Amino acid sequence: MAIKTIGIAGLGLMGGAVAMALRRAFTGVHVLACDIDENTLASAKADAVIDEGFVDAKAMLPQCGLVFLCLNPSVIPRFIVENMRAFAPSSLITDVAGVKTGVASFIEANLRADVDYVPGHPMAGSENGGYSEAKKCDFTGKNYILTPLKRNKPENLALIREIVYKMGFSRITETTPAEHDYAIAFTSQLCHVIAAALIDCEQDSNIIRFGGGSFEDLTRIALFNAAQWTELFLENSQSLLTRIVQFSASLDKLKSLIENGDRKGLQTCLQTVRERKEQAETVSILHNGRC
Amino acid sequence: MAIKTIGIAGLGLMGGAVAMALRRAFTGVHVLACDIDENTLASAKADAVIDEGFVDAKAMLPQCGLVFLCLNPSVIPRFIVENMRAFAPSSLITDVAGVKTGVASFIEANLRADVDYVPGHPMAGSENGGYSEAKKCDFTGKNYILTPLKRNKPENLALIREIVYKMGFSRITETTPAEHDYAIAFTSQLCHVIAAALIDCEQDSNIIRFGGGSFEDLTRIALFNAAQWTELFLENSQSLLTRIVQFSASLDKLKSLIENGDRKGLQTCLQTVRERKEQAETVSILHNGRC
Repeated sequence: MAIKTIGIAGLGLMGGAVAMALRRAFTGVHVLACDIDENTLASAKADAVIDEGFVDAKAMLPQCGLVFLCLNPSVIPRFIVENMRAFAPSSLITDVAGVKTGVASFIEANLRADVDYVPGHPMAGSENGGYSEAKKCDFTGKNYILTPLKRNKPENLALIREIVYKMGFSRITETTPAEHDYAIAFTSQLCHVIAAALIDCEQDSNIIRFGGGSFEDLTRIALFNAAQWTELFLENSQSLLTRIVQFSASLDKLKSLIENGDRKGLQTCLQTVRERKEQAETVSILHNGRC
Repeated sequence: MAIKTIGIAGLGLMGGAVAMALRRAFTGVHVLACDIDENTLASAKADAVIDEGFVDAKAMLPQCGLVFLCLNPSVIPRFIVENMRAFAPSSLITDVAGVKTGVASFIEANLRADVDYVPGHPMAGSENGGYSEAKKCDFTGKNYILTPLKRNKPENLALIREIVYKMGFSRITETTPAEHDYAIAFTSQLCHVIAAALIDCEQDSNIIRFGGGSFEDLTRIALFNAAQWTELFLENSQSLLTRIVQFSASLDKLKSLIENGDRKGLQTCLQTVRERKEQAETVSILHNGRC
């Protein structure tokens, strides 16, 4: 690989997982990280996940041909502005922010002309945050979304794709920030709203005695970080609200079929659902090369 | 154990899993099974999961001190009526039906006076059915619900509890059929309706490229058997409709918070959800003795 030094800005769950995946994928590449928490940096160095840790981003950035921004989206604009002059000449930035419209357009509008930026979103996370959870975050066979900019040099886009594949992701999709945010509002944010509503609507703690797997499946993600998900919901609220309405319409349709005792209509609907789900599973399994 | 021969009526997913668990838990107990499918019986005998298979229930039942009814709930009434005289004198029946009000009251009202019946529901299943899937159905640490009848002899109830624990279940709850059905409408049927609505409302197959774990978690159960779940939804429709309304109210509450950009209200709600979920996890982990 052309790049010899990669920097990670923010060594939380995703930053840690990216560092570990880079370490496994590329021998001879220096992996640096900056974070406000010295203990995290010390742990990661002791684990040999990073070569060097920095509390001051300005000391790390000039050394890096590529920087992964693994910061909370709300602090990315300030990070970019404050460290504008510290990025190495002609270096490359990518990020992992879960909502792309705001972050990507801010960076695009504000970045130095010689620095390139390929916006990205690894579709792999966990309800538990922090560097200590990073090793449980497995990228193998997962999805990755890129929302390339017109300014992107083809070789930089190709490089990011190569790195993403080598980190273990198996399906890379290129789309626009708007399409990304609309899709993510469905697959991620709507699902978190549903999990939250399921827990919110039943206060009887005895209900868990009646759990048989599906309730546990649907509410696993309710162990979210409340502050982080509040931010994600509100940043992508227009798409999310559209998705809630879309879901509610199908919920109402099923409710009517049950209310009317429409056995035939209900079974036809459930059969269509099952077939669509089955098809999605088949596509994913074939794609991930798991069979 | 006092009982030397246990019969399984219906060797599908649950019947197969019960047979396997009995085999592991009790050495020296004969495990018999009846099923309409001779090939399934032959497989189970070849696997040493059962000692003998019967296509004719009337040939099996007289030998059994205990019978597990692992049939589809819709065929249980006919099975009971047709085989009424074949049950061994003073024998014991239990079942695994997922909805208890109808099935349990039918059996109670129609059963021979000398035969006892303890209604049960193992909270362990799979979206995939059939004997071939049974070995993947792990009972360890799972919930089991019993809805005992006034007629139950204390020693029979105690025996079922002992067998259930030895099969691997860790938490047995005794309740009424009505309370069971209302709880199950929430933890199981509502969750299946939600999964179905999520798949139903988005026809773009490309959406799976944006999956990052939560959508997959929430829709895993959409690989259900459409005929079986139509039956379950309609048999328990009153409770299920109440649960859909209950869930929709919380969904609407979250929607309003997002719509109004109420950052503080949203974060407070999500934080309460997270804490309630965390508490439920802790209770379950302690109970299951996994830590």
